[in-house]
Amino acid sequence: MHVLDLDTPAIAVDRTKMMSNLTRAHAFADGIGVALRPHIKTHKIPELARLQVELGAAGITCQKLGEAEVMADAGLTDILIPYNLIGSAKLDRLDALARRVDVIVSADSAETVQGYATRFGDPGRPLPVLIECDTGGGRCGVQSPAAMLDLARKIDAAPGLDFAGVFTYPPRGRVDAVEAWLAQARALAERSGLPLRIVSNGGSPDFYRVDKVRSATEHRPGTYIYSDRMQVSFGHGTLEDCALTVVATVVSRPTAERAVLDAGSKALAADTCALPGHGHIIDYPEAVITTLNEEHGIVDLSGCAHKPRIGERVRVIPNHVCVVSNLFDEVHLTEDGQVVGTLKIAARGLLR
Amino acid sequence: MHVLDLDTPAIAVDRTKMMSNLTRAHAFADGIGVALRPHIKTHKIPELARLQVELGAAGITCQKLGEAEVMADAGLTDILIPYNLIGSAKLDRLDALARRVDVIVSADSAETVQGYATRFGDPGRPLPVLIECDTGGGRCGVQSPAAMLDLARKIDAAPGLDFAGVFTYPPRGRVDAVEAWLAQARALAERSGLPLRIVSNGGSPDFYRVDKVRSATEHRPGTYIYSDRMQVSFGHGTLEDCALTVVATVVSRPTAERAVLDAGSKALAADTCALPGHGHIIDYPEAVITTLNEEHGIVDLSGCAHKPRIGERVRVIPNHVCVVSNLFDEVHLTEDGQVVGTLKIAARGLLR
Repeated sequence: MHVLDLDTPAIAVDRTKMMSNLTRAHAFADGIGVALRPHIKTHKIPELARLQVELGAAGITCQKLGEAEVMADAGLTDILIPYNLIGSAKLDRLDALARRVDVIVSADSAETVQGYATRFGDPGRPLPVLIECDTGGGRCGVQSPAAMLDLARKIDAAPGLDFAGVFTYPPRGRVDAVEAWLAQARALAERSGLPLRIVSNGGSPDFYRVDKVRSATEHRPGTYIYSDRMQVSFGHGTLEDCALTVVATVVSRPTAERAVLDAGSKALAADTCALPGHGHIIDYPEAVITTLNEEHGIVDLSGCAHKPRIGERVRVIPNHVCVVSNLFDEVHLTEDGQVVGTLKIAARGLLR
Repeated sequence: MHVLDLDTPAIAVDRTKMMSNLTRAHAFADGIGVALRPHIKTHKIPELARLQVELGAAGITCQKLGEAEVMADAGLTDILIPYNLIGSAKLDRLDALARRVDVIVSADSAETVQGYATRFGDPGRPLPVLIECDTGGGRCGVQSPAAMLDLARKIDAAPGLDFAGVFTYPPRGRVDAVEAWLAQARALAERSGLPLRIVSNGGSPDFYRVDKVRSATEHRPGTYIYSDRMQVSFGHGTLEDCALTVVATVVSRPTAERAVLDAGSKALAADTCALPGHGHIIDYPEAVITTLNEEHGIVDLSGCAHKPRIGERVRVIPNHVCVVSNLFDEVHLTEDGQVVGTLKIAARGLLR
């Protein structure tokens, strides 16, 4: 079946583009001697996580425990969860998960460390813990290398915990500042007798500049596997590299300059990402998806010389591909425009 | 179990508030003599659709065929699909659905009408078709009453189709203009021998002003069952009326003025709805959810005298509740803060 014959809306991944994105990233990481620990949030598919490991990834990253459980069920054995896991329900599940695969967790506060320490008390199988560092991203994380060291000492003092290092979700476009922060943390930790085994850096936008983050021992890009309009706007490849498209049908042409697609915020996701419009229509590059309702994508055709007819299928490169993966139950794989397989998005919608 | 003891993120519906929203709307509709055909997109739950029918709804509205199929499976028997259904896969399913429940479909173009006509040719069981009218909303729909009449004639000429009337998704805050459009259409149709049996008007924001849309025979509000921050901003009730909340945990307090919730765009949805912040934290009304990443809600606490601690549970009224329902597999029902039941969101994520 041709990709444009799929019932819509649907999502399709061009396997050749995806493989090219993957092999380029792994070759780059090998070249600079840094490990890759891909973030599976972009695809949420065990088969693709296994592919990343086969290509040389040191392990995977899952943001949620539920995603890690699905990946463990599928045979993934080395999983980082860079998220504060809080509360007895999650700690029970973490305990069960850590008994069957290698799990690395994280913390940015004494409260989170205390939770891990109460559940993991066996020095014979210590739980590795990374400290999250806010290197300028303004999300979670300790605010200074000194605060990192204070928390590292608490982890080190807990018999069942193993202080394994640090990680950061870095601010985009500031690799030098990130490196300065991490280098300072690394030096302080070494001087204090708590050396950092793992220094994990994240994010796809700056991935091909990560050679400047010399303190990092591993990198956790996610979006690089598919890429999207936002990554392209950040300078990470071109629109041609975007492997995932949303296939949609033109369901209405109410006026000469307006089309309506059957892909709205339930298919394309509402993340604007500070971009003009809600996606790039490949065959109508001048068209602008001005508004998304849940089931309607409203398109301004005023810039288009050629205009789509009712019933026509179009392919849209989404602004932010990770959130699109979370809206579909399956993704179709294509080669040369032909559907060659379908993968279940097994870790879709796992919020806890 | 208390709602604040749920593992997070989760969604909870206060049954008393929901019932109050429902009974108020049904009483209002009865009072002005207009039928209600609630849009199930807000809850996507067959049990709640059945409750709406038990309370007197004339039928239900589903935006997608897949939603209608789930509702038909659950015993709903009168379903409007106000969406152009295009392509053989959907027409096959529509044919099957129309053989087991009463379905009303819609069209805004000759192409869509032609699709229905090719599949439905039996005058013994004609398919009722409404014409979508763009009364100023700028989405789908014919652009004038005259264009409506042209299309009505095409439907009337098809042996297996039954021209049943019109519907509109109206622009907000312009009930007088909507009424003028519909009254003109109604008069034109009557003069032309094609009277409108159904004139269906939509939207929750103006629901309590729908008495001014005197031409309407039915109304299709959706969000009224739960309400949300956007509806409140439109003047539809108060924050106290909002029945659905997202229960979240404070997972980080990186600075004195910043908290991070485990509810990001995967739980609260990224629709900003032109509101300040991504939701209203009930116990911290001065807090502003400034940024959503997929799994992180970043909160500015600078306006808060009292501030939440790490591990604390909070309840958030989302900006747009319909898109939140689409992100969760189940919803918990509560009474006086206690969880009294859990409903599966059976029509979640049905895009086709």
